[in-house]
Amino acid sequence: MIYFDNSATTKPYKEVLDSFVTVSSDFFGNPSSLHSMGGQAEKLLSQAREQVAKLLKVKPTEIYFTSGGTESNNIAIKGAALLNRNKGRHLITTSVEHASVMSAMEQLEQEGFDITYLPVDENGRVRVEDVEKAIRKDTIFISVMQVNNEVGTVQPIKEIGEMVKKYPKILFHTDTVQGIGKVPLSLQKSNVDLCSLSAHKFHGLKGTGALFIREGARLAPLFSGGNQERKMRSGTENVAGAVAMAKALRMTMVKSETGIARMKKIQSMLRTALNEIEGIKIHTPIENSAPHIVNFSLSGMKSEVVIHALEQEGVFVSTTSACSSKKKFPSKTLLAMGVPESLAESAIRISLSFENIEEEAKTAIVKIKKTANQFRKVMD
Amino acid sequence: MIYFDNSATTKPYKEVLDSFVTVSSDFFGNPSSLHSMGGQAEKLLSQAREQVAKLLKVKPTEIYFTSGGTESNNIAIKGAALLNRNKGRHLITTSVEHASVMSAMEQLEQEGFDITYLPVDENGRVRVEDVEKAIRKDTIFISVMQVNNEVGTVQPIKEIGEMVKKYPKILFHTDTVQGIGKVPLSLQKSNVDLCSLSAHKFHGLKGTGALFIREGARLAPLFSGGNQERKMRSGTENVAGAVAMAKALRMTMVKSETGIARMKKIQSMLRTALNEIEGIKIHTPIENSAPHIVNFSLSGMKSEVVIHALEQEGVFVSTTSACSSKKKFPSKTLLAMGVPESLAESAIRISLSFENIEEEAKTAIVKIKKTANQFRKVMD
Repeated sequence: MIYFDNSATTKPYKEVLDSFVTVSSDFFGNPSSLHSMGGQAEKLLSQAREQVAKLLKVKPTEIYFTSGGTESNNIAIKGAALLNRNKGRHLITTSVEHASVMSAMEQLEQEGFDITYLPVDENGRVRVEDVEKAIRKDTIFISVMQVNNEVGTVQPIKEIGEMVKKYPKILFHTDTVQGIGKVPLSLQKSNVDLCSLSAHKFHGLKGTGALFIREGARLAPLFSGGNQERKMRSGTENVAGAVAMAKALRMTMVKSETGIARMKKIQSMLRTALNEIEGIKIHTPIENSAPHIVNFSLSGMKSEVVIHALEQEGVFVSTTSACSSKKKFPSKTLLAMGVPESLAESAIRISLSFENIEEEAKTAIVKIKKTANQFRKVMD
Repeated sequence: MIYFDNSATTKPYKEVLDSFVTVSSDFFGNPSSLHSMGGQAEKLLSQAREQVAKLLKVKPTEIYFTSGGTESNNIAIKGAALLNRNKGRHLITTSVEHASVMSAMEQLEQEGFDITYLPVDENGRVRVEDVEKAIRKDTIFISVMQVNNEVGTVQPIKEIGEMVKKYPKILFHTDTVQGIGKVPLSLQKSNVDLCSLSAHKFHGLKGTGALFIREGARLAPLFSGGNQERKMRSGTENVAGAVAMAKALRMTMVKSETGIARMKKIQSMLRTALNEIEGIKIHTPIENSAPHIVNFSLSGMKSEVVIHALEQEGVFVSTTSACSSKKKFPSKTLLAMGVPESLAESAIRISLSFENIEEEAKTAIVKIKKTANQFRKVMD
């Protein structure tokens, strides 16, 4: 089996699961309990927070554990909008964001906020000047993803962050769910105020994530209650999940350099081989793209049909983002890039993890070519 | 070690953790993925939903997986208020609810909703007639917990539910986080529209919970995004957590009958023995109380001091709810019951699980008596 759908989710590292089990069974106390079992759990939670902070080069007090990327994006966007609505009601984002950003924005629109959805170029990239041009007196928030989840385009986060510095009223949020560990990002240098992470995208566990909130940035919480996570996220802390996430992030960062190099090699192999197939169009740009995604269309072949055919050959890929895969619409990102609808309907996403090896890519290429040829024959 | 703080959190069952690990490592696909690994994960999620539904005697489509009790309470309260605000802006609750209900209500107050916090009698019980009297033309929501987390009082959920039937505009929510498996509750017969569960209170995992939403009840989601959980709770599903929760609930329900009987026996032993201690006041009522909680004060002795002394003897108990333990205020529940502040400051909560045995209670009694005597000597 060749698992090439790592942007949908990854297999948790064994060590990550082991940590989860150890903490869950041996340190199961409630961190809010006053006795030593509570204290032990709280200490583990603090250590996890310190580890994550250290890996992201920020302060531990700036890390908030959540239930995942969608929650992090929702807290960032809705929390900022609701708390800062007296300062303005205009938000800026792009037309290629993840569903959780898009839908949060749309929900705010219904609440009377005004949203600008910026276009992207043919590579799926937003222009910094477009972001700046969209800024109004009442703009309070900008959200731009670091790496697009469908085609892998890397957005100019550092450049946007530097530009936003001139507008101190604006909070700058980036969703690094697809990028973390695979595309370098300095939260400091990029002047990012809010940043969302999801652990299951880097071999951590589903149901765990984090939100970086820069010191001084103020948000309204979505959950109120026992005031855990410095009042930003009430609810008994998932200590084992946080420890597991910290471990997954550490392992990811340790593997990062060689992992990225291998990904780039595999990506390049895939590109070269795919380009030999008749009627293929690769959507992932060559410049400013993450190393783990290759999005392409086999023209005239419906994505779903190709996916199921490849699955028969033991190769697991996807159509678009998993979070949107069951909506029967072609990829919003591809349409925003100007890809014709007919071609967007044929889109296939290969997404790698640090655990994939070149041998798998070689086998996958054979299977993809075989599948393409079979379909081509039937269609001719 | 005697762990008597099970209302704060419980130790996950080994079988529950085993299920979590198996699903996480062998069925790690994203349920939204179109290939068979996604399909397998989706199937496991459906099975978990069916199991939970069956155990609660409701429909699978009425079960929504969440990250825990706090999230479930927040979705129920805020989701209902926000979606139904055009029908009215008045909500009713009691003055002894969990922090997550109280704070959600307070947040709604700031948004222009009007909240009635009903008083309770000396046993911590709300009167059904008080609930009905508080109903106004613009009342859209009533939230009453099934079992109080601090003293164990069981609220008249069935009676309130029957009464609320006369007011079809009102959604009736109950928080069964402390009660499930330990105090019988029929969601059907009690006419409950919304019900919150937290898995880590019944030997499931932290970070997992569920919300029952009766068919036809409409709520606004807190998280928007990929439209998972029938659009009510976006975000990649924590499949392994849901499976683990279903297993924990099943094990709890299987153990329920004998477990409750043993709890009652232990509770009775504790009551009898505690009553022999000079200056003791037991707050947990004899009638209408859950079998797993005994809340008492050793007058003149600060809770924290007693807790730490008992911990030295290997007995782990708590002051109040874990979610409120670090706020330096005496228990709101005890104050609402008319307990004087000085006595409320001495409150100790013993909370049992089905895994506690009589021997532990016997040992704990010796330790509590010893501790009380030592303090009494010092103070005399």
